[in-house]
Amino acid sequence: MDNKVYAIADVGGTKILLLLVGPDQNVILRQKLPTPPEATPELVVKVIEVALSRALQEVAVSPQSLAGLGVCIAALLDFEGGVIYEAPNLDWHEPIPFRDLLQRRFSCPVYLENDTNAAILGEVTYGAARGHRDAAYITISTGIGAGLYLDGRIYRGSGGFAGEIGHFKRFGKGRRCGCGGSDCLESWASGEGIARSGRMLWDESDPSIGPLNTAAVFDWAEEGDILAGSIIKQAVEDIGISLANLATLLNPSCMVIGGGVARHRPALVGQIREKMKHFAVAPVIKVSPLEVVAAQLEPEAGAWGMHAMMCR
Amino acid sequence: MDNKVYAIADVGGTKILLLLVGPDQNVILRQKLPTPPEATPELVVKVIEVALSRALQEVAVSPQSLAGLGVCIAALLDFEGGVIYEAPNLDWHEPIPFRDLLQRRFSCPVYLENDTNAAILGEVTYGAARGHRDAAYITISTGIGAGLYLDGRIYRGSGGFAGEIGHFKRFGKGRRCGCGGSDCLESWASGEGIARSGRMLWDESDPSIGPLNTAAVFDWAEEGDILAGSIIKQAVEDIGISLANLATLLNPSCMVIGGGVARHRPALVGQIREKMKHFAVAPVIKVSPLEVVAAQLEPEAGAWGMHAMMCR
Repeated sequence: MDNKVYAIADVGGTKILLLLVGPDQNVILRQKLPTPPEATPELVVKVIEVALSRALQEVAVSPQSLAGLGVCIAALLDFEGGVIYEAPNLDWHEPIPFRDLLQRRFSCPVYLENDTNAAILGEVTYGAARGHRDAAYITISTGIGAGLYLDGRIYRGSGGFAGEIGHFKRFGKGRRCGCGGSDCLESWASGEGIARSGRMLWDESDPSIGPLNTAAVFDWAEEGDILAGSIIKQAVEDIGISLANLATLLNPSCMVIGGGVARHRPALVGQIREKMKHFAVAPVIKVSPLEVVAAQLEPEAGAWGMHAMMCR
Repeated sequence: MDNKVYAIADVGGTKILLLLVGPDQNVILRQKLPTPPEATPELVVKVIEVALSRALQEVAVSPQSLAGLGVCIAALLDFEGGVIYEAPNLDWHEPIPFRDLLQRRFSCPVYLENDTNAAILGEVTYGAARGHRDAAYITISTGIGAGLYLDGRIYRGSGGFAGEIGHFKRFGKGRRCGCGGSDCLESWASGEGIARSGRMLWDESDPSIGPLNTAAVFDWAEEGDILAGSIIKQAVEDIGISLANLATLLNPSCMVIGGGVARHRPALVGQIREKMKHFAVAPVIKVSPLEVVAAQLEPEAGAWGMHAMMCR
């Protein structure tokens, strides 16, 4: 048993999840804070510092007794150097020594990790992928991304940027992606991609239509609308092909599907599994078992991954 | 310096390459044997045994002084168990305990590895990818396959079947692949895929056309034939997209391109590099260097990989 107290922050585009975890994985405190609009890195650090010191006071834990602070974030970042290169949700596009900014405010060791890398470690350690040595976590959310756990450890790639499956190509025809490229998987099949497809077909300024978000397209598809249904069907096929290609290249034994869209539409995992198995290389699938399962720790998979990283 | 003598066999569909390597990577003997037609696993083992014992006699090395035998082969195989599941070039489709069959005939340790896994280890140890911790070897030959070297070691996947990039989907429309699926990368862009595309356009029974093989399509494209040119252009684009997806998922620092087609058409590597960089995720490519280079050890990359594996 681990007697220490760990602090964890999962920094998202709209909110920051704060956890204080004590001995035996006991959650001492769980808090959600809004991410300040147009937040600079310094402001995010300040929010974490203030919220954490208040939280520690609240639960009567001294800051000195903190064994570690783990922060995960949706960003292209270099784990070794603790530098964030791109955080699209926060509109950060220049290199930021984010771990150093945090470390200056905290005396305990600070860990900074990409959110999907943290999520696969969380799911492998405490969740849906326990016991697997080769597994991937795929988030289907505003964007699409993956975290890889290969040969029993997080795989980050040479620059720390592995897992950018949302930018697999080539899907659909002629849609620009936020990355600067065209026809990336996530420009069509992510929550935002599905909403964009809806806005191409319907006019949201029409009061009988209403706001054209991901939920609306899913709802209409479930109500039997043929156009909405074809948007969802195509998104499922595109994700299925991408996961088939991941399986064909990496031969994992488990894929964990998480993220907001998957969490709110539980039927998706089964539909994606079916397409994935259809497109993955048959002779391998035949002899090498591959589970495709829903995430178990959502929306805290990343936070628990940071916990696993710190108490190893 | 390593004082030992190692024996290596690279078993292909048409020939078997035999190497005897002595101290200081000195090649004592290099031999090519035809693979017997319709060779059973037992027959291939027999060929290796007889050829090797003759070779050892020839160079006056006693079989007892052999430090290891390394065999690589184009097959879906399980490294740990030494079992071959599929070797399409040899028409083997049932599980074969191939390493055990070999081990019964040799008193030295026997290693059995997939040929592209061996090739990336060879290129990382002695060739074009020296110094890289995250690299991929891609063979463009009759088929297309990859060997992965991730975080400083061969990555094999949960069942041992990683690297099947030739079965990435979805390319072209409606072409069956030998794997049982449709529209795999290699059904269009491999040497055999290019020849198939040629046979769809021209009639090889016409004496003015002649045999429609990969070389013919490349030659006509180089002579300015527009149809042949479009077949090659499409193959380059399909391979470029597939390598872009590999780079987007794994963020390696080096990709080594080998195989017979690449070796005979040296302009290919540059063309593939250009397409790959066009389709790979831009923010990563911008900050994380990625070399795309021709293999240096061809056609012996696999053999040298087995050498590296044995003398580690």
